[in-house]
Order: sequence, then C-alpha cells, then structure tokens
Amino acid sequence: MSGPDEFEAIARLFRPLTRGAPEAFGLLDDAAAVPARPGYDLVITKDAIVEGVHFPLGEAPDLVARKLLRVNLSDLAAKGAEPYGYFLAVSWPAAWTEEARAAFAHGLGADGEEFGLVLLGGDTTSTPGPMTASATLLGWVPAGGMVRRGGARPGDLVLVSGPIGDGVLGLAAARGEIDEPALAHRYRLPAPRLDLRETLRSRASAAADVSDGLIADAGHIGEASGTRIALRLEALPLSAGARRWLDRQPDRAAGLLALASGGDDYELVCTAAPDRADGLGMTVIGEVVAGAGIVVTYEGDVLDPGAGGWRHA
Amino acid sequence: MSGPDEFEAIARLFRPLTRGAPEAFGLLDDAAAVPARPGYDLVITKDAIVEGVHFPLGEAPDLVARKLLRVNLSDLAAKGAEPYGYFLAVSWPAAWTEEARAAFAHGLGADGEEFGLVLLGGDTTSTPGPMTASATLLGWVPAGGMVRRGGARPGDLVLVSGPIGDGVLGLAAARGEIDEPALAHRYRLPAPRLDLRETLRSRASAAADVSDGLIADAGHIGEASGTRIALRLEALPLSAGARRWLDRQPDRAAGLLALASGGDDYELVCTAAPDRADGLGMTVIGEVVAGAGIVVTYEGDVLDPGAGGWRHA
Repeated sequence: MSGPDEFEAIARLFRPLTRGAPEAFGLLDDAAAVPARPGYDLVITKDAIVEGVHFPLGEAPDLVARKLLRVNLSDLAAKGAEPYGYFLAVSWPAAWTEEARAAFAHGLGADGEEFGLVLLGGDTTSTPGPMTASATLLGWVPAGGMVRRGGARPGDLVLVSGPIGDGVLGLAAARGEIDEPALAHRYRLPAPRLDLRETLRSRASAAADVSDGLIADAGHIGEASGTRIALRLEALPLSAGARRWLDRQPDRAAGLLALASGGDDYELVCTAAPDRADGLGMTVIGEVVAGAGIVVTYEGDVLDPGAGGWRHA
Repeated sequence: MSGPDEFEAIARLFRPLTRGAPEAFGLLDDAAAVPARPGYDLVITKDAIVEGVHFPLGEAPDLVARKLLRVNLSDLAAKGAEPYGYFLAVSWPAAWTEEARAAFAHGLGADGEEFGLVLLGGDTTSTPGPMTASATLLGWVPAGGMVRRGGARPGDLVLVSGPIGDGVLGLAAARGEIDEPALAHRYRLPAPRLDLRETLRSRASAAADVSDGLIADAGHIGEASGTRIALRLEALPLSAGARRWLDRQPDRAAGLLALASGGDDYELVCTAAPDRADGLGMTVIGEVVAGAGIVVTYEGDVLDPGAGGWRHA
C-alpha cells in the first residue's frame, strides 16, 4: 500500500517517532513484534477521526495529531492502563501539503514524548476525500486488572474526575460562538486523566471516559453492567467558564442537561462502592441502582435526557 | 466517537464477529485486554483502504471487507505469524446503505471464520468522503521468531511462493481491459499464503509479501537488510493467464518487467541460505549480493526497473 515517495516520507517523518523501540524495527518491516510481558495484559483501543466531522477544516495539523493520540489515551486512562505504543493509519488529501504532514508528525512526536508512547507501525495512503486517520493504542495493566465498563453494582456511587460540559462549550468557543478561550484550548487539546489510572484500578468498579457526553458514557457503564444509573445534575462539577455560561441560561436544568449531553470532556466517569469512593478524590454525582437505563434528575425533578448526548453521527 | 445508532449498529453487526472471545468484552467496553502468552510475541500490522484508491466504487461490500482482512493476513503470513484477532476502524459515507454495511460485516464474519480471526474492537464514524477503513491485525509467533525483512545475507537465494503479475493483470481484468476472469477473481479476493508460515519461520532469512510489486518488495528486503538484490525475470513463475498475456506482448523483457512491477500478488518473496532453500518448495528467482539497491536482468541483460512497481500514490 505504499509508493516510493511514501517510503521516503515514512523514513523522514515517522521513523524518529519510534524513539528507537527495537520492536518497531525502524518501520522497515511491515509489522512490529511485541514481546509478552509476564503478569501484564495488553489493553488495546482504536479510534478514528475524519476532517470536517471530528475536527474542523483548517485546524492546525499538530493539534489534530495530538488530539488523535489524546482521545485514545483517554480510553487507556479509563481502563487504568499505562501508555505503551501505537499504530497509525493516515489517508492524506492532496490539500495536505508536505508542511502540513510534517506538522502532523511533529504533533505526534511531541505527545509521544509527553505521554511515553512509541510509534510501532502503520500505513499511509492518499485519499480524494477528507483527511482521515486512526490510531490503535496499546497500554499495559497488571493481568486481569483492566478497569471495565461492566463492573458497576447496585449500591455503588457514580463519580466524575472533573468539570463536565467544557468540551461542548469549548467547541462553541472554538467556533467563536462564545468568548471562552480557555475552554476552546481545552477542546482542541484535551488532557487525558492518566494521573488517575492507579487509583481507578484500586478503587473503581467500572469506568469510562467522557467522550460521547456524560449521560451517554454513564449509560454505557449501566448497559455493560446490567444496572441502572441515576445522575443528579445539581452535583456536577463545573469550570468557571461553564458556570458563567450556565448563569446566562434561562432554564438551569436544561442548561445542565446540555452540559451533561455534550461530548469531548475527556474526564473520567466511574463507579465505586461507597467505602472505596473516598480515596478516589472525585465528585459524587449519582448512584448505581437495580434495573436498566438511566435516570437524570435536577433537584429531585426527573428530566428527559432526550436524544442529546451524541454529536457525531 | 459514537452515537446511539452506531451503538445499536455495533451490537447487531459486529458483536457476533468477536465469536465470544472474552478479551473483546462483547464490544461493550472501549478496549480489549489481551493476556500475555508466555513464549510468544504478538505480531501487529495495520493497513488502510480507501474507496476509489484501493478498490473501485461499486465493489461488492463483502469483498471489500474480505480483501481488507486478507491484505493484512498476507503481512502476517510473511512474518510467519498465526492469525489471532483484529481491530477495525470504518468511516461510512451516507451512500453506504444499511444493507451495504451489513454485507461488509458479513464479509468480515466469513473470513474471520475461515482464518480463525476474532474481532477485538474498533470504531465506526461517518464521513463526507469515500469509504475508508483500516484493520489492525494481531498474530502470534514464538518469541523472537518473527520473520523479518532485515535478515537477508549475501549468498542467500531469493525465492517466490507462486505466480507473479496476476495482481496487476487481475486489476486489468476486473476493469474489463483483458478477458481473464480467474485473474479478476484473484485480484478481488487474494489468498494470503498462511500455509507457508511454519516453513518460512524455519528456513527463510527474510520475507515480505508481494503487495507493492515484486521488485519493490524484494527491494524493501534489500534495504532493510543492507544488501543488494539481483532478480532474474526469466525465472519468474507465471500463471497460465499471465503466460497468455505475455505471449501477446511485443517485448518479452518489458512484459516481465511490468508483471514484476505490478502489485497485489499477495504471494511471498523471501531469502534463504542455499542449503535451507530446498525445503521451502518455492521458485528461485535471484540472489542476495553485497551492495545496495536492486538489479533486474532478463537472460543476462540488465533492465531499468524505472519508477514502476508502485500503483498507489
């Protein structure tokens, strides 16, 4: 799936991103060989992004690359996994110049160093369509220790690791619809909560990252666990920017519902037994109960979460 | 990166493809957990395909899916690896109907069963552009036993596992340019040479699959090994269809050069010490010599391989 130009481009742009990892064979092979790490499982996750769907046309290429890694790193964080390496597939449109491609590779390199990730292999192709890329990320957890979505039990508390709604407000800010530069920055360059992975592994019964929206992702935990999730919107932690926005909304409950339905927060939502929840240092926002589905309340009133909570069709 | 419709689509179309593998968690999690297999390395390879670049608009969706798996399985075959599982990213255009998506999943299921592959995870998104997909394939080899591109040594023979040129002629046949239905079928549904993986591991010093074209792929072995490759085109094994085509060419050397420059054969090219080459049951087509680059001859005359050998830009 390569051409002579691609072969040179790989060498120039991508080989340094292996950071000398012997299992990548300098990208001269068509495959990597990952040795077994006794006592550990390999946690693997894969996400794709499409220009114009997951990031706007004209977004800085290095930020596109870094966000691609970070949304996948956020999945590893939710699983309690230690980042290890990644495989990349990129389809370049002709409009992505050599400079743009180099900036993309530079972004991968910057976050590879920041998060201790090595490039292990992949593929580059051309496309007549929008720039499209996928990353397959690998991380390590002690054998059997991956934090799953399916471990929540009735009686557990539901907690979140940080502000909810900054993703959807950040998107609005990035589009110039509201004036919150800090939120726009956070939307364009999320910070995966890898700092929480050890605590999660020792204390959480289930976890997911908040990428589709809090209500949706908490719902995924409920579905995978065969339980019902009850969320109290008045308990949501909010950033200063989100509080400013909320104060301007005519209907506070509807505003909170919008924040809990937006995606791209990249905080973690988890469940834990009450006697283990304290040490998580997170905010309690609800409970796991018997049943199925999700119930969302604001100061005791049941709200209809509707079909919100997903922005990517 | 999902929506409610996607979540249901995943359940309906893709969950059966896990074939009950516990490490896939029924696709209800955002990640898979692959346990260490003591004494084995995990071989991982990733390739992407784009509609209109790697397969024609209007190609049957089940064949697209099967070819995606098979081009990656061909990489695993060249590494001597036993197929294990895969992660999938698909970006669907609106023009791909529910039926087309189901046919795609059906193709994955058919080849998953045929080759013993389980779906472990992935991502689906929408795209305003052409259908784009990538597969990350995992296979097992005994620790340290991956057949590399970089192991060729001067004095080794160069061998191929079967007919060369059927890929490029098959593409011409699929386009209706020549009348060779068997080659068209082979182009649309290649057969990865997984049958050779044990022999390769015990006898080959280096190997690659013939995806970019024999000359290009033999050249990759030479480059990764720091050696020069000498190929004799008169020694190439040819199918009956390729012999018919070659007999119609005014210049036999140029015809052979075209066959050795086309891609998508999905046979294996390897190198082996002369005393180990016999047991491979392959055709000797050249030698590894000291130096760099590649030299291609026809009955003693040196040919200019030119810039051929790559079709995908």
